[in-house]
Amino acid sequence: MKNKKVIIVGAGLVGSLWGVYMSKAGYEVVIYEMRSDIRRADIKAGKSINLALSNRGWKALETVGVAEEIRKMAIPMYGRTMHDLDGELTFQAYGKEDEAIYSVSRGGINAKMMDIAEEYGDAKIIYNHTCIDVDLFAGQIKLKNTETDEIVEDEADLIFGADGAFSAVRYTSMQKVAGFNFSQEYVEDGYREILLPAYEDGSYRLAKNTLHIWPRGRFMLIALPNEDGSFTCTLFMPFKNHEYSFDKLNDKKSVENFFKEVFPDFYKLMPDISEHWSSHPLSSLALIKCYPWSYGKTVLIGDSAHATVPFYGQGMNCGFEDLTIMWEIMQKHEDNWELIFKEYEENRKANADAMQNLSLHNYHVMRDYVADPKFLLQKRIEAKFSKLYPDKWMPLYSQVTFSHIPYSEAAKVGFEQERIMKEVMQIDGIEEKWDLEDIMYLIKAKL
Amino acid sequence: MKNKKVIIVGAGLVGSLWGVYMSKAGYEVVIYEMRSDIRRADIKAGKSINLALSNRGWKALETVGVAEEIRKMAIPMYGRTMHDLDGELTFQAYGKEDEAIYSVSRGGINAKMMDIAEEYGDAKIIYNHTCIDVDLFAGQIKLKNTETDEIVEDEADLIFGADGAFSAVRYTSMQKVAGFNFSQEYVEDGYREILLPAYEDGSYRLAKNTLHIWPRGRFMLIALPNEDGSFTCTLFMPFKNHEYSFDKLNDKKSVENFFKEVFPDFYKLMPDISEHWSSHPLSSLALIKCYPWSYGKTVLIGDSAHATVPFYGQGMNCGFEDLTIMWEIMQKHEDNWELIFKEYEENRKANADAMQNLSLHNYHVMRDYVADPKFLLQKRIEAKFSKLYPDKWMPLYSQVTFSHIPYSEAAKVGFEQERIMKEVMQIDGIEEKWDLEDIMYLIKAKL
Repeated sequence: MKNKKVIIVGAGLVGSLWGVYMSKAGYEVVIYEMRSDIRRADIKAGKSINLALSNRGWKALETVGVAEEIRKMAIPMYGRTMHDLDGELTFQAYGKEDEAIYSVSRGGINAKMMDIAEEYGDAKIIYNHTCIDVDLFAGQIKLKNTETDEIVEDEADLIFGADGAFSAVRYTSMQKVAGFNFSQEYVEDGYREILLPAYEDGSYRLAKNTLHIWPRGRFMLIALPNEDGSFTCTLFMPFKNHEYSFDKLNDKKSVENFFKEVFPDFYKLMPDISEHWSSHPLSSLALIKCYPWSYGKTVLIGDSAHATVPFYGQGMNCGFEDLTIMWEIMQKHEDNWELIFKEYEENRKANADAMQNLSLHNYHVMRDYVADPKFLLQKRIEAKFSKLYPDKWMPLYSQVTFSHIPYSEAAKVGFEQERIMKEVMQIDGIEEKWDLEDIMYLIKAKL
Repeated sequence: MKNKKVIIVGAGLVGSLWGVYMSKAGYEVVIYEMRSDIRRADIKAGKSINLALSNRGWKALETVGVAEEIRKMAIPMYGRTMHDLDGELTFQAYGKEDEAIYSVSRGGINAKMMDIAEEYGDAKIIYNHTCIDVDLFAGQIKLKNTETDEIVEDEADLIFGADGAFSAVRYTSMQKVAGFNFSQEYVEDGYREILLPAYEDGSYRLAKNTLHIWPRGRFMLIALPNEDGSFTCTLFMPFKNHEYSFDKLNDKKSVENFFKEVFPDFYKLMPDISEHWSSHPLSSLALIKCYPWSYGKTVLIGDSAHATVPFYGQGMNCGFEDLTIMWEIMQKHEDNWELIFKEYEENRKANADAMQNLSLHNYHVMRDYVADPKFLLQKRIEAKFSKLYPDKWMPLYSQVTFSHIPYSEAAKVGFEQERIMKEVMQIDGIEEKWDLEDIMYLIKAKL
């Protein structure tokens, strides 16, 4: 396999990591990136919601031995902390005691992944080059140098489109192929980021090792910790036509009143919120679906194939899992890329679809259900049963976050669990009885 | 409203006709067309399945007084003629005695519509110009002259994207707007056109005033009459992975055997079918959905907003109806285009969605159900009831084809009718009893 070359379009998280994999497979790796080098310039690495690394993501990093590099910059969050209107806090563990998801800043991990691609992957990253055309079957690509407007061409044995939700590989080339199914579907809600700074001594204004949620039914605020003591907070809310929507927060006064009214404890931590409101743009959220993912020598990986809404924290993890799955398939079919691409896209499409559905559903969980004592009780009962019979019941959240069970299977099992728990929750006096052994037997019988 | 200018992108059927409307509204009309002038060159006007003009289309032509021009070249088809494996024919009328849909060749009607746009609409049609960018809010457009590669810019008060299923206005400009929902969805089946020539004396080889169908369950052949005695025939079939699919018709022998086996009466009319098999390409069929349809000064009309599969014969008719509806809304809001575009897209989106669903459903009707005596009986019962109580029951096909009832309403009523008829068809011995008055009373009671 020596003397073979791959081109990866996009030096984001998935593209950079794939560079390491392909280098390990013996390929020369060239990565073209549209933006400048974020390590040198003060630029944003795309959208900036903090990311939550979980088991699927870690596995992809571990497979090529680069997990430790990332672990240094990742902050464990062991559960959710809900903030109600009175500032009362409720904590819900994500999984077992030592199970956590890990907060990483998008810019930080992306810069590190580029280092890793160069260091571990021997990858040559060429910046400021935007893809304008791909001959999918010939493995030829045409790019424009955005600094000089020069058109350059390149060629490789394989081309990987890792260029994100608005993929140029997909847009300029795949979308024009007859038979290529594609959709971009925006949700009603947008988001705006807010940076909650550290105290002057560098300490955190909120508990560090937890994901904070202010669930308010139709909207929510969340906060994820950064290494420097700050929190990256994100407000998700309808753009318009709701009692609370972004169109009503159009001046400092309205922003201030809004936070005072619906997030009073947050407002106390950041009384100058209205001064910082406009530091980040109001952004949209979309689901991208398409199929097939491959033509000839070209294939999509990560967000370019299946960008999702961020509510299950699985966007990056799913993209990383694309890579471990591709890698596993490569071991089976050696150098037969036609077979590899075919098996990869068939395997991953069903799972990406399931992951997107789970992500949409989890928005309801985060902004609404987690504020409901009945929901939290249900999760407590599930956790207890799962501890008693770990081989019979893994909660859906754990399957998605802490296991490597395919998303589509997890969704199916989770659906069945939900059906059973609905029945259990209708038992008279369940609030008192839930801890009794009878209840555990009952669930076992229903399985 | 004098001295105002509109740019229409695309001199297809919808764009050309809209030129007449806008000229009538007092606008200077400039139409940019990607292709050469089909009236001068021997080129295809896009895809070539014959079109079936029906009432919605005629109304749009009549509203600006150009229907007579088209009527001269339109051949009425009063029903469907089904051809079974033994060459036995079954005729099913489309509606009442004088009701017909009208076969027109796509190239023919398009050339005539261009004449009409120039003559009745004073439109300036500029050929060989492909849209490369639109400033949707400013009403500015950038195009490339495909003969000289020169980039030209133009500007108008309004821009109408009438550039078809693969609209460049939508692709280059709208698709990049955050919040623009879009999907292109291909069906499993493709189609290939076949020209069944006239006899040497110019006479038709099949009955002229009917739409011929060879329904074969999972696939079908249809034939629509042309003015010169020929028929434009189209074979719709899965691309692959079926007992009968295009991938199996890969040489002259297999084509010949296929026609002999499944369309024996057609084969007798055209024993040299395998010689002509490759004269037309194998093509794909897609549904295009998007929303919103307008931004600022720019709006989509016709296929660019809602391209469909051809099985209900409503693609052109729906596009033409866009124009009559826009025209009606213009009368309400005069020159307030923000209001006009808003009301237009809200009104038409629901109806275009319904039209697309009806189109998909009608593929099953044409290729399968029309070969089922039970289905034909059901339609006969409906026709009888409808004749008795015309104000209580208009068959779905008639609502779609011969009325101006909004597609979404027609679909709703049709769904309810289907529910009732399912019950009626389960009556013991319905085959004998159907003509009895009791049955008519029963249906009336169910309404």
